[in-house]
Order: sequence, then C-alpha cells, then structure tokens
Amino acid sequence: MTGQSAIIEEAGLDAVTLRPIGVIHSPYRKHGDGPIQGAFQPTGQGTVEVFPEYAAGLKDLEGFSHVYLLYVFHRARPGYDLLVRPYLDTEDRGVFATRYPRRPNPIGLSVVRLLRREGNVLHIAEVDVLDGTPLLDIKPYVLAFDGRDDVRVGWLTRKT
Amino acid sequence: MTGQSAIIEEAGLDAVTLRPIGVIHSPYRKHGDGPIQGAFQPTGQGTVEVFPEYAAGLKDLEGFSHVYLLYVFHRARPGYDLLVRPYLDTEDRGVFATRYPRRPNPIGLSVVRLLRREGNVLHIAEVDVLDGTPLLDIKPYVLAFDGRDDVRVGWLTRKT
Repeated sequence: MTGQSAIIEEAGLDAVTLRPIGVIHSPYRKHGDGPIQGAFQPTGQGTVEVFPEYAAGLKDLEGFSHVYLLYVFHRARPGYDLLVRPYLDTEDRGVFATRYPRRPNPIGLSVVRLLRREGNVLHIAEVDVLDGTPLLDIKPYVLAFDGRDDVRVGWLTRKT
Repeated sequence: MTGQSAIIEEAGLDAVTLRPIGVIHSPYRKHGDGPIQGAFQPTGQGTVEVFPEYAAGLKDLEGFSHVYLLYVFHRARPGYDLLVRPYLDTEDRGVFATRYPRRPNPIGLSVVRLLRREGNVLHIAEVDVLDGTPLLDIKPYVLAFDGRDDVRVGWLTRKT
C-alpha cells in the first residue's frame, strides 16, 4: 500500500484540522436529555447559528426540507472505545457499527428537518444534538443520493 | 451568545484535529472519472481499508447493508468557496446547499452498499469517492434514523 501512503503524505493528510462554522442550539443540556435519534422526536426543535463569515454559503438551503448536520461530539470524554455497549443492546458492538460518540474521530451526523432560515440562523426540528454543539458542516439531504429502501440493519433489527 | 462561546472555549474547540482511520480505494483516479453520486452507479465497486489498529471497531458492521463513509476531500484545492456553480446547475448556489468538495471543512459524506467484510477490509458498491481518499469515520445507515420520505430538494428538483 506504498502508493496510497504516498498520496496521503503528499497531501499532508496524516491529520486534518477543522474549525467550527457555527453552533447548534437545542433544548438538550446533557447526555440523556435528548432522544437517541432526532427522527424519534419530531417535535424537538432547535436552531443552527452559522457564524456570519460563512452565512453567504447558506444561499438556497431553504429549498431543502431536510439537511445533514456534521458536528463535533464535544461532550464526549477524550479518547475512544473500539467496542461499545449501545443503549439499545445487551452485547458489545464495534464502534463503527454504532452511532456512539466516543469514536476515533468524534464527528456526529444527524438528519434534521429544516423549518426555515432567517439570515444566518436555521430553525430545525427532529433534533437529537446537545445544546452548544460545534457545527462543522451542513449538506442538503437528497433522496436520490441518500435514500435507500433495501436496507438491513444488523444488530439493530427489531430494536428501532 | 457568551454562554455558547464559553462552552466551545472550555472544550478547546476553536479547532479539532482528526486523523485518518483508513483509506478508500476506488476505480476513480481523478475528478470527473466517477459518478456524481454513488447511487447513480450501482456497479462502481471499491474497498475500504481500515488501518489495523482500528479494525476491532468493525465488529458487527457486516450486518448492515449500507454504511456512511465520512472522508477528507483530499484532492480539493486548499481554501473554500461560499458560492459555487454545481455540476447540475446554471446558477450559483450556497456551498452548504451543495455537495461541492471545496467547502470550509472539506469533509465528504457518502452512502455506500456494504457487500462484505474481510477482516479490516470492506468491499463496497455504489462508490463515488476518488481512489486514495483518507477515511475519517464509518457509521451504519439505519432507515429508522436516516430515512425520510417527505423530502423537498430545492434547486435539485427535477435534476436528479
């Protein structure tokens, strides 16, 4: 795999440094306050405050009913576990087969409903994120790209 | 918003440093080789090579038919654009209303089909990622969390 390693080194990608582009506000102050997934709590609302220097990048976002939020699991203890006991389970699972926050790169991903945009503030529902969460990115949720119907969910079968 | 800023500073989250956990291998060597989205190219196959030190975190992943890959857009030029002209469009759009790679935090997100796992290697289909892409995270795709049906797609309407 020398070739691949060379590409990564060439691009300086032994590490990548990211900076928050905003903050997510929600009613959930601590682990356990929120739903385990936003889709289970359609009424849970919040806001996404995008820092003014990035606000121009929100143009046209209001046409989308749902967006992905990518964020930092900032309340997870430092470090990570490779085997975890999920909330919904009685066995240890590989962390990459879960949405557990304490993972090698502590990035969270949620689909939320976009209610409206007011300048640099997004009003959202179906929120499962803790208040004060640093936002890394927003992407439109596009059924043709992101929708699947023939889905198997392994250990989560009959648990969701 | 002093409270939020204090939380971010307290957590040291003016920036977060991430390290690749693996490499994505695909038939696509440069921009333009691949499909614009993996769902449009069901036969496009590749592999995800997870570095051995993280392989234990893959336990149970093989039960899932689809996974999210989070990765670095390592071939995007440094910097970012807030307004971009998407491939499918004739107008400038806000970067957060697109999947454009040259974004403030150059993180990519793709849903791929997981064909099988062999140790630390995932065999995948529906791939739209360039060969050599540094992998940041893998998450299971769970219909109950990530599926939506009442979706509006703004400027992408009638383009996908």
